[in-house]
This record gives sequence, C-alpha cells and structure tokens, in this order.
Amino acid sequence: MREFLVVGHEAPTDADFSLADLPGAGRLDLLARCVTAACLTSHGIREAVRVRLVLADSYTVRFETAQLRGLHPDERSTAARVRAALAEREAAIGHQPVEVAPGVSLVRRGFEPELRAAAEGGTLLHLARDGEPAAEAAVPDDPAFALSDHRPFTDDERALLAEVADRRLSLGPVTLHADHAIPVAHNWLDTGGYRDY
Amino acid sequence: MREFLVVGHEAPTDADFSLADLPGAGRLDLLARCVTAACLTSHGIREAVRVRLVLADSYTVRFETAQLRGLHPDERSTAARVRAALAEREAAIGHQPVEVAPGVSLVRRGFEPELRAAAEGGTLLHLARDGEPAAEAAVPDDPAFALSDHRPFTDDERALLAEVADRRLSLGPVTLHADHAIPVAHNWLDTGGYRDY
Repeated sequence: MREFLVVGHEAPTDADFSLADLPGAGRLDLLARCVTAACLTSHGIREAVRVRLVLADSYTVRFETAQLRGLHPDERSTAARVRAALAEREAAIGHQPVEVAPGVSLVRRGFEPELRAAAEGGTLLHLARDGEPAAEAAVPDDPAFALSDHRPFTDDERALLAEVADRRLSLGPVTLHADHAIPVAHNWLDTGGYRDY
Repeated sequence: MREFLVVGHEAPTDADFSLADLPGAGRLDLLARCVTAACLTSHGIREAVRVRLVLADSYTVRFETAQLRGLHPDERSTAARVRAALAEREAAIGHQPVEVAPGVSLVRRGFEPELRAAAEGGTLLHLARDGEPAAEAAVPDDPAFALSDHRPFTDDERALLAEVADRRLSLGPVTLHADHAIPVAHNWLDTGGYRDY
C-alpha cells in the first residue's frame, strides 16, 4: 500500500462551490490534481493507493484505488467527486467514515487523527528539502507521504510531523507543487529507489 | 534550456471550444497540465524552459518561461491561454511565429518541423519503456523531451523520432501520463541524474 496524505488548508468543507472556479474553491484544482497523480497511471489505476485529502482540518475524503471506479484525470471531474462526498457530510456522524461511492469515503476527521492513522499503517515520510536524499534512502514497505497544498505546513503541523514521521526524505533540490511531487515519489518507489528497473 | 514537446493528436486548432469541458476539447486538460508541469515550481516559474504544444499537427503554441508572466497552475486558466493563442491564428502567416502574449507564441507548424527544431537546439530524448534507465544515463546539456498525449505516438511519428532523437531514455517501469512524466524528467535533471543534490 502507498499512501498520500494531502492537507488542503483552505479547502471547502461543504458542497457549496462552483466547479468553474476551482482555484477560488480553496485551491481544489491543486487537490484534485494530487488525487489523480496519486491514483492514475497512463492507462489505468494504480493497484493499492490510498489518498487522504484533509479539508480545512475538518473533514477528510479518502480515495482507495482498490475499489475506486471511473476516476478521470481532469481537475473538474475529480473536484466533482470531492463535492459529491461533501454533499453527504450530514451522514458522516462521529468519526465513522461514510462511503459515498466505491472507493470514496468521507470522515469527519482532521489532520492529526488522519496523520496518526497513516503512520500506524506504514512508514510515514515527511518530504523536506533537508531530508535524506531519495537516491541514497532505502525504499520502505508501505510508504505514506505527507504533503501540503500551496501553503507550507503550519508550525503545529510541523511539530506533529516531527513527532509522528518515521523519516525525512528529500526528493530533490527544487521545491515542487504537491501534485508534481507525487509522481516523483511514485517514480522513486516504482524504480526501487532508482536501483531496480 | 530544457524543452518539452508535447503532441496533442486531437487538440483543437481554433478557439471555438468551451473551458467547461476541457477533456472534450481534444484532451486540453492534459495538455494544460503538461504546460504547468513543465513551467512551474512550487512558488515560481522555472528559468529556462520551452514548451512546444503541437496541436493536431497543424499549429504549435510555444511557451518560454524566460518571458512568460502570470501562468497559473490550474487547467482552466492555462487552457484559456491556449485558446487566446488560437484566437490569433489568422495572424500566424506562413511559418513565422506570432507572439500573442509575453512568452506565448503561435506558429503554423506541426510535429515534424517542431521536433527537428527541438533536436537542433539540444539533445532530443525519446522517452520509452525500453530506453536507457535514467539512473544510469548521463544528464545531457539542453535536454529536449518528446511526449505524446493520451494516445501513443503514431507509426509515422515513431519513425521520425527514431531518425531524429539522440537517445532513448526510460524514466521507470510504469507508463505515466505525459503530465506526470514531466515532473519526473525535471527531477532527474534537478538532481543531476539522482547523483548530485
């Protein structure tokens, strides 16, 4: 299993936004691209990927490729999947996830519990410029990557990452958008740390 | 200089398409993501990148980051830049490019002349599964990458690539969407072939 937890600091928490202005909807354009970058290959869907899209520390939409069907690569249709999930938010009672479509669920949980869950299930990697260079790092089993949207992690988020993350990893010297870092992270794993392909 | 030539086989050649349905506009969603993946870093624009977006073998929109201003990372606004370029197509006379905005120009040329121009200016790399693994390959000066949209290169395009490309390069064992291959290619260059960062 590969996990990507993406924090959307200003993301919408209800379905009342327009698909015609995704940057204006808390940068849902970027978050949608993160979902497709994590889940899709050129002509199919990756086998065992989970995305946790944390929306304004209030709700999380989870995508599980093992069950997911009909995910298209464009921003708008993926944002529509997030909106459809948020339309069910009244059904997300307590901390129980509600499945809104095959492989898509909504849960009323924010960053900390989702990050701890990701860390429990695998090796949590904090992507950071001063981390261990990927080319020198061993590829872990069940890697989970934590990424932030157009804003950096807050001080509180960084403190929690410092506590919970297993390792700090650097993918390279250039700081990338989260949706561009995800294909690079996948490629690092796909190639066995650039050693095995 | 880094170049990315992206072939849009079904891309529009006039401005008569809706920004609300980019997948239906010859997969302009994908082509727009290729432009932003090639040009942008997390908080800025790359210094010396040229993108050649070949539209249905008829027109090419070129983006030059040295002059480009105000490129946003979402699909819709980038597709609007392509549409604005196509709105000037009557001004693209002969094979002279017409600058439609700073760093954005339109030229009435298709795949072959654009590919030959990219090869002349640098080292043309054909991304292919059976190419030399990137981790073992030397990083060239002035690399130019040729990529195809959701369709594979046609037989004729492949024949031309075989003639013109300097090398065949494999980024990994998983075939990626062009917009996901571009950040991986950038990362390979940014890290000096994974050796130097």
